[in-house]
Amino acid sequence: MRKEHDFLGELEIPDNAYYGVQTMRAMENFQITGYTADPLFIKALGMVKKAAALANMKIGLLDEKIGNAMVQACDDIISGKLNDQFPTDPIQGGAGTSFNMNTNEVICNRALEILGRPRGDYNYISPNNHANMSQSTNDVIPTSIRVCALMRAEQLIIALENLADSFDKKGEEFKDVLKIGRTHLQDAVPITLGLEFKAFASSMRRRSNYIRRSCELLHTMNMGATAVGTGLNADPEYIKEVCEQLTLVTGESFTTADNLVDATSNTDIFTDLSSSLKTSALSLIKISNDLRLMASGPRAGFCEITLPPRQPGSSIMPGKVNPVIPEVVDQTCYQVIANDLAVAFGVENGQFQLNVMEPVMAYNIFNSLRFLTNAVNTLRTRCVDGIKANRAQCAEWLDKSVGIVTALLPHIGYETCSVLAKEALATNRNIKDLLIERKVLSKEDLDVILAPAEMTRPGIAGKELLKKIHESREELV
Amino acid sequence: MRKEHDFLGELEIPDNAYYGVQTMRAMENFQITGYTADPLFIKALGMVKKAAALANMKIGLLDEKIGNAMVQACDDIISGKLNDQFPTDPIQGGAGTSFNMNTNEVICNRALEILGRPRGDYNYISPNNHANMSQSTNDVIPTSIRVCALMRAEQLIIALENLADSFDKKGEEFKDVLKIGRTHLQDAVPITLGLEFKAFASSMRRRSNYIRRSCELLHTMNMGATAVGTGLNADPEYIKEVCEQLTLVTGESFTTADNLVDATSNTDIFTDLSSSLKTSALSLIKISNDLRLMASGPRAGFCEITLPPRQPGSSIMPGKVNPVIPEVVDQTCYQVIANDLAVAFGVENGQFQLNVMEPVMAYNIFNSLRFLTNAVNTLRTRCVDGIKANRAQCAEWLDKSVGIVTALLPHIGYETCSVLAKEALATNRNIKDLLIERKVLSKEDLDVILAPAEMTRPGIAGKELLKKIHESREELV
Amino acid sequence: MRKEHDFLGELEIPDNAYYGVQTMRAMENFQITGYTADPLFIKALGMVKKAAALANMKIGLLDEKIGNAMVQACDDIISGKLNDQFPTDPIQGGAGTSFNMNTNEVICNRALEILGRPRGDYNYISPNNHANMSQSTNDVIPTSIRVCALMRAEQLIIALENLADSFDKKGEEFKDVLKIGRTHLQDAVPITLGLEFKAFASSMRRRSNYIRRSCELLHTMNMGATAVGTGLNADPEYIKEVCEQLTLVTGESFTTADNLVDATSNTDIFTDLSSSLKTSALSLIKISNDLRLMASGPRAGFCEITLPPRQPGSSIMPGKVNPVIPEVVDQTCYQVIANDLAVAFGVENGQFQLNVMEPVMAYNIFNSLRFLTNAVNTLRTRCVDGIKANRAQCAEWLDKSVGIVTALLPHIGYETCSVLAKEALATNRNIKDLLIERKVLSKEDLDVILAPAEMTRPGIAGKELLKKIHESREELV
Amino acid sequence: MRKEHDFLGELEIPDNAYYGVQTMRAMENFQITGYTADPLFIKALGMVKKAAALANMKIGLLDEKIGNAMVQACDDIISGKLNDQFPTDPIQGGAGTSFNMNTNEVICNRALEILGRPRGDYNYISPNNHANMSQSTNDVIPTSIRVCALMRAEQLIIALENLADSFDKKGEEFKDVLKIGRTHLQDAVPITLGLEFKAFASSMRRRSNYIRRSCELLHTMNMGATAVGTGLNADPEYIKEVCEQLTLVTGESFTTADNLVDATSNTDIFTDLSSSLKTSALSLIKISNDLRLMASGPRAGFCEITLPPRQPGSSIMPGKVNPVIPEVVDQTCYQVIANDLAVAFGVENGQFQLNVMEPVMAYNIFNSLRFLTNAVNTLRTRCVDGIKANRAQCAEWLDKSVGIVTALLPHIGYETCSVLAKEALATNRNIKDLLIERKVLSKEDLDVILAPAEMTRPGIAGKELLKKIHESREELV
Repeated sequence: MRKEHDFLGELEIPDNAYYGVQTMRAMENFQITGYTADPLFIKALGMVKKAAALANMKIGLLDEKIGNAMVQACDDIISGKLNDQFPTDPIQGGAGTSFNMNTNEVICNRALEILGRPRGDYNYISPNNHANMSQSTNDVIPTSIRVCALMRAEQLIIALENLADSFDKKGEEFKDVLKIGRTHLQDAVPITLGLEFKAFASSMRRRSNYIRRSCELLHTMNMGATAVGTGLNADPEYIKEVCEQLTLVTGESFTTADNLVDATSNTDIFTDLSSSLKTSALSLIKISNDLRLMASGPRAGFCEITLPPRQPGSSIMPGKVNPVIPEVVDQTCYQVIANDLAVAFGVENGQFQLNVMEPVMAYNIFNSLRFLTNAVNTLRTRCVDGIKANRAQCAEWLDKSVGIVTALLPHIGYETCSVLAKEALATNRNIKDLLIERKVLSKEDLDVILAPAEMTRPGIAGKELLKKIHESREELV
Repeated sequence: MRKEHDFLGELEIPDNAYYGVQTMRAMENFQITGYTADPLFIKALGMVKKAAALANMKIGLLDEKIGNAMVQACDDIISGKLNDQFPTDPIQGGAGTSFNMNTNEVICNRALEILGRPRGDYNYISPNNHANMSQSTNDVIPTSIRVCALMRAEQLIIALENLADSFDKKGEEFKDVLKIGRTHLQDAVPITLGLEFKAFASSMRRRSNYIRRSCELLHTMNMGATAVGTGLNADPEYIKEVCEQLTLVTGESFTTADNLVDATSNTDIFTDLSSSLKTSALSLIKISNDLRLMASGPRAGFCEITLPPRQPGSSIMPGKVNPVIPEVVDQTCYQVIANDLAVAFGVENGQFQLNVMEPVMAYNIFNSLRFLTNAVNTLRTRCVDGIKANRAQCAEWLDKSVGIVTALLPHIGYETCSVLAKEALATNRNIKDLLIERKVLSKEDLDVILAPAEMTRPGIAGKELLKKIHESREELV
Repeated sequence: MRKEHDFLGELEIPDNAYYGVQTMRAMENFQITGYTADPLFIKALGMVKKAAALANMKIGLLDEKIGNAMVQACDDIISGKLNDQFPTDPIQGGAGTSFNMNTNEVICNRALEILGRPRGDYNYISPNNHANMSQSTNDVIPTSIRVCALMRAEQLIIALENLADSFDKKGEEFKDVLKIGRTHLQDAVPITLGLEFKAFASSMRRRSNYIRRSCELLHTMNMGATAVGTGLNADPEYIKEVCEQLTLVTGESFTTADNLVDATSNTDIFTDLSSSLKTSALSLIKISNDLRLMASGPRAGFCEITLPPRQPGSSIMPGKVNPVIPEVVDQTCYQVIANDLAVAFGVENGQFQLNVMEPVMAYNIFNSLRFLTNAVNTLRTRCVDGIKANRAQCAEWLDKSVGIVTALLPHIGYETCSVLAKEALATNRNIKDLLIERKVLSKEDLDVILAPAEMTRPGIAGKELLKKIHESREELV
Repeated sequence: MRKEHDFLGELEIPDNAYYGVQTMRAMENFQITGYTADPLFIKALGMVKKAAALANMKIGLLDEKIGNAMVQACDDIISGKLNDQFPTDPIQGGAGTSFNMNTNEVICNRALEILGRPRGDYNYISPNNHANMSQSTNDVIPTSIRVCALMRAEQLIIALENLADSFDKKGEEFKDVLKIGRTHLQDAVPITLGLEFKAFASSMRRRSNYIRRSCELLHTMNMGATAVGTGLNADPEYIKEVCEQLTLVTGESFTTADNLVDATSNTDIFTDLSSSLKTSALSLIKISNDLRLMASGPRAGFCEITLPPRQPGSSIMPGKVNPVIPEVVDQTCYQVIANDLAVAFGVENGQFQLNVMEPVMAYNIFNSLRFLTNAVNTLRTRCVDGIKANRAQCAEWLDKSVGIVTALLPHIGYETCSVLAKEALATNRNIKDLLIERKVLSKEDLDVILAPAEMTRPGIAGKELLKKIHESREELV
């Protein structure tokens, strides 16, 4: 064990630890979740620190020898091989000071090691003076959250686009599976299973695009704001330089916020991102629930599709198979929606020049991004790609329904249609048979108007018959 | 117009208004929702003020002549005939000071009128000195919220119990309607429609009881706490007396909080009540959704029940009828759940000796109680009472399903059952036919074990056959 | 009373009512909130119906005489003078069918009146055949919600921009009011009151822009989708035309969704809008709370600013004035955040080709937009514009604080600074006096580095002294 | 590797694993959070299974030799030493079937081992036939959630009571620290720091009691309900016996639900519990925020108390110490509030005879209980127990404030008090000096009325002077 001190006193640190006294205090202070930080957040911290060190060297404030060792230490952090040196709880007080100082300590001790010096030799390289040079927790942490969120969001965007592709493929496969459309869970008018799956695809693409839009805002960051957004101790040249370096290090095109006091005190853009995740979750729930409903059965339900079986469904009911994948997707989505509320409470509670609740926001955003990516990939690979249409059942439902009467609306009017529909339902008759029997229209005309394919695309079915039929009827005057 | 002043200056007040200058200011300051207070909240304010006036007279602090006129004024408020004298917005700053002063002003001016004096003669009867004697907004408002909530909760409790009764009646009516039970939206084992409706009844009674429990906490109030809970300006005798008077005036058995500083600064019990409303809403959603699912169709759905038709369902689809009552119940429930979040944000934001966000809490609690009562009564009278069972369809689903194989589990084991269930599904066979054909068990034994009624009550179906069958088989060793 | 019927039977309608039988049913069915629709939603319905009628005439489907009368009826609706003909509860089942049919009935009866015919003469002009021609509730309602939301959002955007302007003006007025910045509610480094108010302005502008972004999505609508998004009964020419007409009627540039099945079944963009309102609310809360904190006192608080007094603050505490305007803003914001949850629950619960929960979404979005606009305008006119700075108090706090030691960090290092700061705090000394006494730096150098103005803009205070000071010290090697 | 199969096919299982094929499938299917189950949930599963095995033996259904080995296996699970055999993700589809089957597999394989048989010899002891005898996932999982929740809740209740004790001790310590009370963040009337801390204690005890109340409901469980609540395959004797055994095994007094269909399909009591956690979180936030406000400073804030310093507060500002413990408590509370929303979404989404979303409910409830317990213990040990009062500062604020004028209200009336308070504030005078100067009352009378201790307990300060003063004045007529 080695000893380290800060202005509150001295603590013992494991000899081989790259972290130091302030990390140690954080470990004692914050024992809430039992978890540690998202590995990509550690990576992001490494990137931000690297950009700062490079900028400080560039403007001549940081000694090159020390600076280069620090950059090498940052690269080690970025590579992930020092992840075990970041033991602090993701829910922590201090607005992420512990994350920042943890990173500063690891950089110093690793850099000291590179330069052949003992750990803890902070007179040579200091966590506060060197690793934190021109910086404050209050610009480093919000910027690192942005960097990590962008990395995680990219994974989610890809997952959503892949899912959309899968839905599109299924939409193509099912494009001629005619079925009854449903509104209010009640039989409506014909549609195809393919149209439904293509609508799923369309919805997933919109959500993906919207997340991308939310990410745009994340590219404005506040490095150089330092403690309260005034930029105290951050040279204007550094401010310009650190932005360029961050762009180079991350491959994301960052800009410095116009108003650094605003950018340091406010965290509203995290709700923008989190809200877009929430909305994606809501859209996923709708799809999952449609799949669960369409797959209900296998005998006493809608039975329009079959999901690939993934595990025996019951400990007591033999042969039962449940839609476990949509179910786990639903639950993940509930978690994401809930996490968004934690973010909202965090954002609400900023005061004066800082919102100290950033750690809980980051924790929830990273979790939501990660969980949602996993759920989307699970849905695609373990469910959607293996879905099969039950064409016979779809056809049977369509044949039984009376909803097709809607296609006659332009021809014979709502009221006549209503009377006939009501009678068909009351007498349990087939609507087309009834129409023919009642001579409402000729069988020939009905064959034209009620051609199912006709009814699943825009237009008045049998439009060419309109004039002829109207002239022979009174209802529409 | 008459003129009134407070320490901020003078304002013109309509001559015939019972309210005064502070109400006028509130009308100018708070223009958010465009609504006014819940009438029962005005009633509650009248009750609390009456109790305070009676207590002040009883301990000799308030002149009897003035006091009696004030009590008469309070009775007028309680009767509802002065409701139009309470024009302030329910979402207001000042922790309800405007509600309290509005009431004080109305009491004074009505009492002055009773005593033959002009409105605004506050030297004779003063809103602050007489109507507010021994009181503060900070005890009057939270107490009045309790009184109003109790009145509204009583309506909801009755509504829920009536709904439970209706479900029980239907449960009785449907007790022999055998049907397939479903878990995961997948066919499970037999149940009866009656059992389902009785479970709805049971659930509604539990929620009703739980709301009653939450109401217990509302009977502890903080009259006498005055400004910060220390009781400054509230004589100990008054504190005892006002509690007794409030009990008499309201008919609810109130007690004074042990710790008045706590009771004045904290509003957590409002979340307890609101949470119980939220949970009731969640339970109602479950029921509404079950009704919507069971009524799905009329041709291409579960079609197990028919809801009473309430309005044409579609502007375009003739003959369509939608489950509009469960739908409006669902939506009301979403509102109630959402309102609970507003309450939570309010409760979160207390500071030091007061939570100034009480108005938004009260607004949401009263709305939730009112909306929910309306929705529950609507569900009962316009839907549940008219539900009909589609017995033939229920029987058909049950007959088709393979879930009954579960009853064979104790007899022939899970694995054999699984193989047979899988085969029945794959070959689209009736499971009982298959069992007989395969001579898994004799037809006689199957008739005993698979008797549907047997399968819908606790116990091993055909328990008396267990030993015989086991001895002739190996799977269970 | 006149009699009208639909396929469920006959009802009596007040003779002078423009609405008809289906509106009547809705009034009976939906008695939840006791409120009626947002007047701008009624206007929006009129606009959408007008666009549809014009399009139907243009493509030759609707008789010109009837069509023109209908357009005139729509104009009456748009003008607001028929608002009392829309009595249905905003929370309603049926996905807004009642709103749609209510509008159809008012159009027909008003058009019949224009053409000199009796109300209820639906054989001549029919709510379903004429007023609803080529339409379905399922395209009319989501489109009308968009139109209304855009009108209400415009009001909010203007309100937010005006508020930002007010903050900017105050920022200019307070630009030389030096004060201590605070993070974690703890003294940090100097800032100016002007910078704080300009940050408020910046934050409000960002939120305003973001709402505008969310509104972009609302310009994609689904007119022509009809019942399930397939466009049954909507001629392709009509679909093109109705979009153009809607653009002309509303002045907003609409486009038809690429995937109408998706656009009809999904309501996720309503959460996008609602989320942006939620986030605006969160940002407003932060500002309101900062104002409340800065104005805390008047003797025993931060006392950095004085808010314009708006009403006596207490019924019991004479002379007390409370920050009632920020308080009402906070509460309005809680409501908006809560409303967003109701929208989320609505969005979650779509099934198959429609989300029937649109009414509760619309209700909450319109309320949030309206309440928030009111709150923002109230905050500006009744609070922000009248705020005064307490310059002496700001200066006193700054003078007492030790946070200025941060400016010495680049010169003498974190550790030395820490020791001195700790000693100043422990001994209750002025930090600058202590620094001079200890000869850490010369008084001349300190005067340069600790010049307050220097400390409130980006840069190393006294950068030109860095080299000299470093050479004379050891800590930074 | 050994091979196991279920009715979906065969999988390879690690030779030394106690879990089997269904656990393996679950690991493949559910990869969402990357976490595993709460260890106390595994313990609860062991307890429930043990109770079931004992009951099955008792009624003669389960062979004693096999049953005893199974009970021993359950004890191993209960002891925690098999925790690594439960690798499934806590967010999972299938309503916990994977948890249940995982437990069944571990019990079988451990029991087989005990009996000297190879793993996977399920013909001898079968996961479905023996370990799951008389049970279903649908009674085992909700019951196990209850058992685990009760264990975790007990920890939280103790933590809250300990915190209340700490607050009470501090309340005693600070009982004579006079200070200004505050409402609306504005100076109000005197209070003591001791009263504030005792109010914190009172609030924590109420929350603790309320959680205990919520736990009462958890003692009603549904063992014996099996698949859909009808009790198919569960002998009535077993149902009675398993309840008694569960009571013995857990030490908690369980009863069987009256309506098992209701108890199996509904999960509302989980929201009751979760809501009580949410409300506790809200109360904790209020306390944490008060501590943060009272400790604001150290120079430019309220500075009424000093929190024990726990870590350097800033990477850039030397000597800064932040209230990191209340901050981490706040954030934990936001998480708990958010988790409650996940529970609500889960509860909302039950259908027919089961709510399949139980896993996400359990995950969030267990997390909330655990996180909250940690936060409460952290707050007590690392913050509250070390809080010191800044008596001088408290006295100074009180001395400066004008709020004491409220004590004169019964003597000289609200209006006179208001005028004087306003003047004192405007002229920056001490209110008592002004009162003496103006000869409003004699110095002797003022000394009696304004005795600070007098003002912090219920009563009219200087009540004995009332008559004398009133007779000499006019305002109150």
